[in-house]
Amino acid sequence: MYQLEHIGIAVKDLEASNALFARLLGKAHFKIEEVATENVLTSFFQTGESKVELLEATSPDSPIAKFIEKRGEGIHHIAFEVADIYTEMQRLKSEGFQLLNDEPKRGADNKLVCFIHPKSANGVLVELCQEIKEARGEG
Amino acid sequence: MYQLEHIGIAVKDLEASNALFARLLGKAHFKIEEVATENVLTSFFQTGESKVELLEATSPDSPIAKFIEKRGEGIHHIAFEVADIYTEMQRLKSEGFQLLNDEPKRGADNKLVCFIHPKSANGVLVELCQEIKEARGEG
Repeated sequence: MYQLEHIGIAVKDLEASNALFARLLGKAHFKIEEVATENVLTSFFQTGESKVELLEATSPDSPIAKFIEKRGEGIHHIAFEVADIYTEMQRLKSEGFQLLNDEPKRGADNKLVCFIHPKSANGVLVELCQEIKEARGEG
Repeated sequence: MYQLEHIGIAVKDLEASNALFARLLGKAHFKIEEVATENVLTSFFQTGESKVELLEATSPDSPIAKFIEKRGEGIHHIAFEVADIYTEMQRLKSEGFQLLNDEPKRGADNKLVCFIHPKSANGVLVELCQEIKEARGEG
């Protein structure tokens, strides 16, 4: 059920890091997407079934800006794809995990997302995500 | 070529974290393995094509003990499977990446491994790994 979907890495300069990770991974990113609600600009690299997501803050209020200020650049979160995010959020709550949002919100890459507090998971910020499947002709 | 193979998470108490991650991921770890040369005890969870590796220090000299002392529990490294680790190490050196070991060493889960310095990769400790394919009848 839990498939590792991506790893999120906080970077200061997305353009420079896109070039760096292209040299590291031997391939270019396949898209850039802004998530205005989170004040981040993201880019994605495909690494097998999973992806690497680079995140640059677009405002000092961005969680990514705060993370870098506190800890420096580095791995920010890991994300698992789940079949039904609502059911999974309920299950995790009943297991005692602290969720950072009560309702799923719209994240990058056409996903509904929810975060688990790192204090609940050995210091790891865990994201759950579920692909949004929109009915054809309604968009 | 670069497939995300696993995420390594530094934990203080492997037994407690195995129980925690079993609740989080909805499945138990599938193996425990000691890597004596690195002074770590590891456990693995399958999460799709990739794995989550938990690492507990077995000595205060362990890199995991030092990591936790400095940064607390959390994501320690990400590992990519490569087809030929020797060729890849040469390529990365020629691209200017700083490697933490000159020769591949034997890691957990039957792999040859090599680490890239986090300073070369936006604060991320990157492991390259290649499965060891031993000839039958020789072991």
